Amino acid sequence: MAAKGLKRWLPIVEWGSGYQGRQFADDMLAAVIVMVMLIPQSLAYAMLAGLPPEMGLYASILPLVAYTLFGTSRALSVGPVAVISLMTAAAVSRLELSDPAQIMSAAMILALISGLFLVLMGVLRLGFVANFLSHPVIAGFITASGILIALGQVPALLGISAGGHNLAELLHSLLVAVVAAVPDPNWPTIIVGLLTLIYLFWSRKAMAPLLEKIGLSARAATMAARLSPILAVVGSGVAAWSLNLGDQGLALVGAVPTGLPGLSLPAFSMPLWQALAGPSVLIAILGFVESVSVAQGLAAKKRERIDPDQELIGLGSSNIAASLAGGFPVAGGFSRSVVNFDAGAATPAAGLFAAILIAAATFFLMPLLAWLPRATLAATIIVAVWSLVDFSIVKKAWNYSHADFLAVLSTIVVTLGVGVEAGVGAGVLVSIFVHLYKSSRPHVAIVGEVPGTEHFRNVLRHQVITHPHILSLRVDESLYFANTRFLEDLIYKEIAERPALKHVILMCSAVNEIDLSALESLEAINSRLGELGIRLHLSEVKGLVMDALKRSHFLHDITGKVYLSQHQAVADILLAE
Amino acid sequence: MAAKGLKRWLPIVEWGSGYQGRQFADDMLAAVIVMVMLIPQSLAYAMLAGLPPEMGLYASILPLVAYTLFGTSRALSVGPVAVISLMTAAAVSRLELSDPAQIMSAAMILALISGLFLVLMGVLRLGFVANFLSHPVIAGFITASGILIALGQVPALLGISAGGHNLAELLHSLLVAVVAAVPDPNWPTIIVGLLTLIYLFWSRKAMAPLLEKIGLSARAATMAARLSPILAVVGSGVAAWSLNLGDQGLALVGAVPTGLPGLSLPAFSMPLWQALAGPSVLIAILGFVESVSVAQGLAAKKRERIDPDQELIGLGSSNIAASLAGGFPVAGGFSRSVVNFDAGAATPAAGLFAAILIAAATFFLMPLLAWLPRATLAATIIVAVWSLVDFSIVKKAWNYSHADFLAVLSTIVVTLGVGVEAGVGAGVLVSIFVHLYKSSRPHVAIVGEVPGTEHFRNVLRHQVITHPHILSLRVDESLYFANTRFLEDLIYKEIAERPALKHVILMCSAVNEIDLSALESLEAINSRLGELGIRLHLSEVKGLVMDALKRSHFLHDITGKVYLSQHQAVADILLAE
Repeated sequence: MAAKGLKRWLPIVEWGSGYQGRQFADDMLAAVIVMVMLIPQSLAYAMLAGLPPEMGLYASILPLVAYTLFGTSRALSVGPVAVISLMTAAAVSRLELSDPAQIMSAAMILALISGLFLVLMGVLRLGFVANFLSHPVIAGFITASGILIALGQVPALLGISAGGHNLAELLHSLLVAVVAAVPDPNWPTIIVGLLTLIYLFWSRKAMAPLLEKIGLSARAATMAARLSPILAVVGSGVAAWSLNLGDQGLALVGAVPTGLPGLSLPAFSMPLWQALAGPSVLIAILGFVESVSVAQGLAAKKRERIDPDQELIGLGSSNIAASLAGGFPVAGGFSRSVVNFDAGAATPAAGLFAAILIAAATFFLMPLLAWLPRATLAATIIVAVWSLVDFSIVKKAWNYSHADFLAVLSTIVVTLGVGVEAGVGAGVLVSIFVHLYKSSRPHVAIVGEVPGTEHFRNVLRHQVITHPHILSLRVDESLYFANTRFLEDLIYKEIAERPALKHVILMCSAVNEIDLSALESLEAINSRLGELGIRLHLSEVKGLVMDALKRSHFLHDITGKVYLSQHQAVADILLAE
Repeated sequence: MAAKGLKRWLPIVEWGSGYQGRQFADDMLAAVIVMVMLIPQSLAYAMLAGLPPEMGLYASILPLVAYTLFGTSRALSVGPVAVISLMTAAAVSRLELSDPAQIMSAAMILALISGLFLVLMGVLRLGFVANFLSHPVIAGFITASGILIALGQVPALLGISAGGHNLAELLHSLLVAVVAAVPDPNWPTIIVGLLTLIYLFWSRKAMAPLLEKIGLSARAATMAARLSPILAVVGSGVAAWSLNLGDQGLALVGAVPTGLPGLSLPAFSMPLWQALAGPSVLIAILGFVESVSVAQGLAAKKRERIDPDQELIGLGSSNIAASLAGGFPVAGGFSRSVVNFDAGAATPAAGLFAAILIAAATFFLMPLLAWLPRATLAATIIVAVWSLVDFSIVKKAWNYSHADFLAVLSTIVVTLGVGVEAGVGAGVLVSIFVHLYKSSRPHVAIVGEVPGTEHFRNVLRHQVITHPHILSLRVDESLYFANTRFLEDLIYKEIAERPALKHVILMCSAVNEIDLSALESLEAINSRLGELGIRLHLSEVKGLVMDALKRSHFLHDITGKVYLSQHQAVADILLAE
């Protein structure tokens, strides 16, 4: 049992015990590829989060190790991701700190609280909280965030100064900055930025087919194409260094500390923790949802499965690790995980190896990174998030259901119009509200017997037999607090219109639950119908619902009977007359 | 059509056009009885709300008129009620105003915003918002409020000074005040207060049987017993006047302005409106829920029905009227409406007549009210709210479902521990959360065919036929965002455990809805199963759900088929092999 307990909390025990040489080779190859891709991305996302670039690397090492120990997905790659970095920027900038050390500390606290919150949810097995974020809300949020992120990188791409937390602020500030820059454009930045951007967009589409044409296998071509952004990084860095573009107005990453900082806990400050608690929880939940979706999708491809509650612990410990290592909030990213997966990562050890490689790189590459143009990183971000911007969900939701459309639309509009945190909040609230609204006025049919059968169908859609003194109602929804008043109102309306009525039968074939509110409504209906000499019956009550009703007094008080089938109910009533 | 439109907004047009003499007599009798009962109650509830007693009368006149014009219930009596008065006290006292005129103005603004909000909801037909308050939450809230109200009246009853917004504050402050008063008790107040309290409790139980014994008819005895509190009012007032108890430490109502104030809008102040907006909405919704429950219950007794959306307009205009007349928030009270109903009110005109009588009373009775002891009013309140305190809902919820128990418990604990507004908020949030939690992990059964029938049942409960390459799953819940991840996880878990699997059939007989999140999950499941060579089928999809699916691409993409019955699905798959 001890071993089972250990496996429960440390999945590494399970796959680690049978680790083999072939898996090592596969994992190592995947690690090299992931490292090459991760380094520029990590620098870029740190910049997106408004932090010094090296923090992106710090956030890419220990979190991978922690996830290797505690995570259950064999393919998930944890590190800085676009949307979480944007949310980090929003949360930290709201504090209006000016001291860079304080800003870094705030980002670390954000990672720490997110991590602790996720671990706590994992221990309490509360992973279902993530369900509150519906697919359309996430899709809408990611699209809107992608737009904000891409626009936010335009200043770095053009060598101007602008910013903002929502669309209006961004556009206004961009317009002002562009107009101001027209007389004296920052040509080195514009040229490097736009060239990189064009190269990246081009390589994304055309590189793989080109490589296949010159003889690479399809898989090798795909992998090589994925790595092609490194060419832009190296090329623009060499150009900046050889042409000394830094002195001509091109912003460079600049001096970055070599090696790794020691592990440390961010200093505790109650007001700071309070101010960051809300954003941390949002970041934690969004990061978890993104990670689990990615992990679940990749696992299903191999008939494996992940344990969502254990994933909370895996991602939580990754965030705690990110904080200790001087990084900022991380999540399992889609693109990096797909690369990891396609590169053939056999076990979570691939993450461990990638971490070691990146750690080594911080010692050897840091001096070179100083020459990297910020415009290149901005272009990297824009290309990365461009694929996130996808309005098809809006059209899909419009066609499928207006309720979902409303949820998507409010998420996008509020995210763009107000900001990321308000956007997620609005999306969650609207989807819960719309769900409750829909189930508060469920579809209800008055049913009658299809002649010659034992089936009961809607009187409005079919030619059926009804009786003036029997009202058969089928409610197509669980009965719970949101619709009890509707049910009472409906029944009182129907009895007010039917003076001959003697029996009401509630057909419960679609009722999956009757909560206490609904039970009390049924009791009220039962006693009021009783006063009018009308008997209330139930039919086709499900097993679980019946179990619950047996725990109440209702089955003793009901003036009528509970029948297994609607047919039997009507037959029995007709027989008794 | 014009008449119909007018009837829609002004129900008085409907019943007023056929008004007859006999109805007038019935209504007038009910009005007299209601007036006698309303006057002391109105004064008491104004005191409970922390306002001058005359505001209780102002809140009992015009609101009755407005409800007569716009309301749909023939029995509902609108005016100050206990819980709403307590909430008014909480909302106003939080503003920490010291000027009595400002306090009165804040109460009027509260009524105005509540009224405007209700009318707006009525015009937009948003009455369903009230559904968010489940029965157990309301029951728990009323019980907890009753305790707070009763304890809050103890100081007035004993002639001491104490107060507080939650149980801890109240008990602590009471204890301190009682200890301080022990050396020098306020005997006149204690004697009047306790005598009134004992008389009221006694008359509530014993008066009607006593009157019947001395020869009154059952109905007359009940009505007379209901009016018996007036004896305590008159008796204690006469005692205070004749024995000049006011000079001996008994707090009296004191000078009250004679007649009615002119109609006026409370002065507009943005910060005040902002501070009161939240409490106003809570007061509006709670008042609406209470009114509608009472009205619906009484209407059903006569096979009549009320229109909940029109009730919003009725109650909203009553609150606006209360504000204009210098009153505070009102609602349809249970006890007063039952009296109205039992007294034989034939039409809403009974309310109109009661209003006229109370208005007349403000001219003739005001000088006499000055002698009324406050302790008598406190006793009246305690006896009135005592019947509200009912912990049976806690036991009932515990027996019936732990989810409902959690909602009741948090409502009671937070109301007592923090205050009324936090209590309602906690109750609503917990019940929504618990509902989503339950439906996020629905009951799912793997089903097989009962031999010799076409029925499919849970493999765990019945001896059924299954096939190793077919998995039949029945989900007993609508598929929506809260449980899509659960569904994906479940299916991936099942396929990971069944290497021979070739077909998954989702039996949708209990699925009342598939929202866009669930649709996207089904698409993902479909395509992942497809990659593994497993086909996904649906069976027993309901008409409405099918209509929605037809608006999507899913029915084209699905690798399997959609079958009318589960039996047909399995038969067809077996046949195709």
